[in-house]
Amino acid sequence: MKIEAVDLFYLSMPVVTTEADGSQDALLVRVRAGGLTGWGECEAAPLPSIAAFVCPMSHGVCRPVRESVLGEVLDGPADIARMAARVAYDSMDLLQAAHTWSGVEMALWDVLGKARGEPVWRMLGYPASHPKNPYASMLFGESPAETLRQGMAARDAGYGAAKFGWGPIGRGTAAVDADHFAAAREGIGPEALLMVDVGQIWGEDVAAAAARLPALEAAGVTWLEEPFHASALAEYGALARRSPKVRLAGGEGAHDFAMARHLIDFGAVGFIQIDTGRIGGIGPAKRVADYAVGMGVTFVNHTFTSHLALSASLQPFAGLEGHRICEYPFQPKQLAVDIAAPLPRDGNGAVRAPDAPGLGVEVRAEALRLYLVETEIRVAGQVLYRTPEL
Amino acid sequence: MKIEAVDLFYLSMPVVTTEADGSQDALLVRVRAGGLTGWGECEAAPLPSIAAFVCPMSHGVCRPVRESVLGEVLDGPADIARMAARVAYDSMDLLQAAHTWSGVEMALWDVLGKARGEPVWRMLGYPASHPKNPYASMLFGESPAETLRQGMAARDAGYGAAKFGWGPIGRGTAAVDADHFAAAREGIGPEALLMVDVGQIWGEDVAAAAARLPALEAAGVTWLEEPFHASALAEYGALARRSPKVRLAGGEGAHDFAMARHLIDFGAVGFIQIDTGRIGGIGPAKRVADYAVGMGVTFVNHTFTSHLALSASLQPFAGLEGHRICEYPFQPKQLAVDIAAPLPRDGNGAVRAPDAPGLGVEVRAEALRLYLVETEIRVAGQVLYRTPEL
Repeated sequence: MKIEAVDLFYLSMPVVTTEADGSQDALLVRVRAGGLTGWGECEAAPLPSIAAFVCPMSHGVCRPVRESVLGEVLDGPADIARMAARVAYDSMDLLQAAHTWSGVEMALWDVLGKARGEPVWRMLGYPASHPKNPYASMLFGESPAETLRQGMAARDAGYGAAKFGWGPIGRGTAAVDADHFAAAREGIGPEALLMVDVGQIWGEDVAAAAARLPALEAAGVTWLEEPFHASALAEYGALARRSPKVRLAGGEGAHDFAMARHLIDFGAVGFIQIDTGRIGGIGPAKRVADYAVGMGVTFVNHTFTSHLALSASLQPFAGLEGHRICEYPFQPKQLAVDIAAPLPRDGNGAVRAPDAPGLGVEVRAEALRLYLVETEIRVAGQVLYRTPEL
Repeated sequence: MKIEAVDLFYLSMPVVTTEADGSQDALLVRVRAGGLTGWGECEAAPLPSIAAFVCPMSHGVCRPVRESVLGEVLDGPADIARMAARVAYDSMDLLQAAHTWSGVEMALWDVLGKARGEPVWRMLGYPASHPKNPYASMLFGESPAETLRQGMAARDAGYGAAKFGWGPIGRGTAAVDADHFAAAREGIGPEALLMVDVGQIWGEDVAAAAARLPALEAAGVTWLEEPFHASALAEYGALARRSPKVRLAGGEGAHDFAMARHLIDFGAVGFIQIDTGRIGGIGPAKRVADYAVGMGVTFVNHTFTSHLALSASLQPFAGLEGHRICEYPFQPKQLAVDIAAPLPRDGNGAVRAPDAPGLGVEVRAEALRLYLVETEIRVAGQVLYRTPEL
C-alpha cells in the first residue's frame, strides 16, 4: 500500500506548568495508507517537531522528514526500516528529525499491523506478549512528608513498585535527599520495588551523585536513574563502578540506537530505558532490546504520557519474559488519559502489549478536538502547515 | 548589560538543491544588549531552529531557548556559561535547542567582546591568535576527471591543502573511489595536504570503509572524515585500529561537548572537527579544544558557510599554535559570501581569528534583505514569530 497522508496534531492542556511532567502536551501522528489509519505519538516539543516535518530543504542531508515518508510504499517491516534509514541520512543535519520520525514510525507499524491483522510484537518476531509489572511513576513531593503520602497513595492503588522522580532531589543537601528516599520507602512499604529518577540533576558531578549512594542503598533502591547528562558516559561509568548494589538506569534521551548502546557499553547501566517516542520509534527500540539481552542488561520502557505511547513502548520488549519492570503513567494529565483507551491490567495488576492488530489501542480522536492547538506555519508566502481536521 | 532582543533571520538562496552544500541557506542571529549589536549563525535547519526558540513550553525541561536568554544579564563569559547551562537543563527534551542556541551563543560573545573592546579569543584566555592554513573545502566531481579539475583549480587558487567530500564516494566500487582519490592527489599536486570526507556514507559498515584504506594511503591522505554515522563510536574505534597511517576525523555533528569527547575517547579520532554553529557555540568548542590538547588530538574547525561562522569557529583554537589546519569555505554560495566581509589572508595565504572586538566580522545586514525568507508562526491565535526587520 501507499502512504497517502501523514497528519500531525499539536494537543495541549489549557495550562502548561514548569512541572517535569511530559503529559501536559502531545504531538499525535495520524498515518493513512490503504484505506487504514495508524496512530503514533512523539515524546517531543510539538512545534519544532512539526517544523522538522514540513520545513524547506536546507541541502541534501538537511531535508524535512516528510520527504522520506509521503508517497512511499508500505508493505512490510523492511519498508519501515528503509524509510528510517532515509530519514537518518537525508535529515542527518536536522537535529529534531529523530523526535518527529519517532511518532511517524509508530504510526507506520500501527497501520501495517492493521493491514496484516497482526500485533506489532509479532511482526518484530516475538511469539508471545508477556505480562509486565507496572511501577507507578510519580514525582517526589516538595517535602519528605509529601513524598511519604505519594508513596502511600501508590501502595493503596495496588502498586508493588514505584518510581519517584525529580522534585527537590539534588537541589539541597544529601541529608534532605536521604529523608526523601526513606519516606518513599516507608510510603510504598518494605516489599515493593523502589526506583529513583533524578533527572540529570548532577550534570557531570560524580561526587555529588556518589554522596547519595549510602542513603539509596539503605532505602533498598533498585536503580538510580539519570544521575547525569544523557551523554555523560564517562561519569555514568565512574559512578557505576562505585555502586555495585544500586544499579544505574538511563537512556530515555537516546535519539538513536547508538546512544543507547553507548550507555550500555561505556556507561555500564544495568537498566536501559527507551522511549519509542524519541529513539526513532519501535524499530531502533527493538534493536536496543536485542542488544540489552546480549549484554545482560534489562530493557525498560520509558513512558510518561498516553496508553498509545505505552503500547508502542511495550512492543520492543513484549516477548522478553524476564524483563518484567514497566513504566506506567501513574498520574498523567487528562489529555494523556483522553488520547487512548487504557490497556487492560490482569488480576495481578500486570499489563501487556495487546494481542490485537497494530498497536491495539483505540485513539479517541473526537475527544481530542478540545485539546487541539491551532497552528499555522507560513514560509515565503506558502502555508507549510495548518492544523489538519481531526 | 541586559539582553534586550534576540532576532532570528531565515535567509536562503533562491533555489536550494540536494547538493550537500550547507551554504544554500542560513539562520542568522542578532543580539542587542547595552546599545550594541552582536551576530551569530546557526549551522542548522532554519525553520525548526526558529521554532525551538519561540515554541510554547511543553514542561519544565522542554522550554523554548528564548526563556534562557531574553532579559538576562550579560557582563562576562560566566554569564554566557550560565545561560548555556540553563538551556542544557531547561531545554533538555527539546532536541533542536542545541542548534538554535549555538548561533545565539556566538552572538553573545560578539556583543560582549564589543562591549569590552576585546576579541573573543582573548576572553577565552588565549594571549595570541595564531595563523591557520586554510584548506579548500570542495565536493568530489561526478567523475574522476572532474575531481582532477577541482583539484587543479584549488592548486591554481594557491591552496596548499584541499579536502574533497561526498559526491560519488561509497556509492560505487572501491576501485572507482580509488580513481577519485588518485585524481584528487594529481590535481592538487604531490606536496599539498589532501583530506577526504565521505559524509557518513558507510553508516556502520567497517569493512566497506576498510576496503578504501589502501587507496587512501596510496594517495597520501591525511585524514578520512566521517566514515560512519556521527554516533557509531565502536565502528570509528575499529577502523582507527586498522588505519595507523590515515587518521580518522569527525565531530561536526557533535551537539554537545560530550559527543566530541566520546569520538576522542572511544572513536580514537586523530582530528576532532567542531562546528561552533552546532555544538552549542564557542564555549563548548573551547572545552573540546582543551580536551583535544590533553589527548594529543588535533582540533580543526568545521565551517562550510560564511566568514562570520569562520571567525566563530576559529576562536576556540585561535591560541593553539600547533593546530594549524583550518577548514575554509572554498566555493560558498553567494548568500554566504554576502553575509560578512571576508577575513583577510596574509602573504602565505594564512587566516586567523581577527584581532578586533568580538568576532571582528562586519555583517552586511542591508545586503542580506534580498535573501530573507519571510516566515510566520502562529499558535493558538498568537503570532509567535514573524521575520523581524533586518
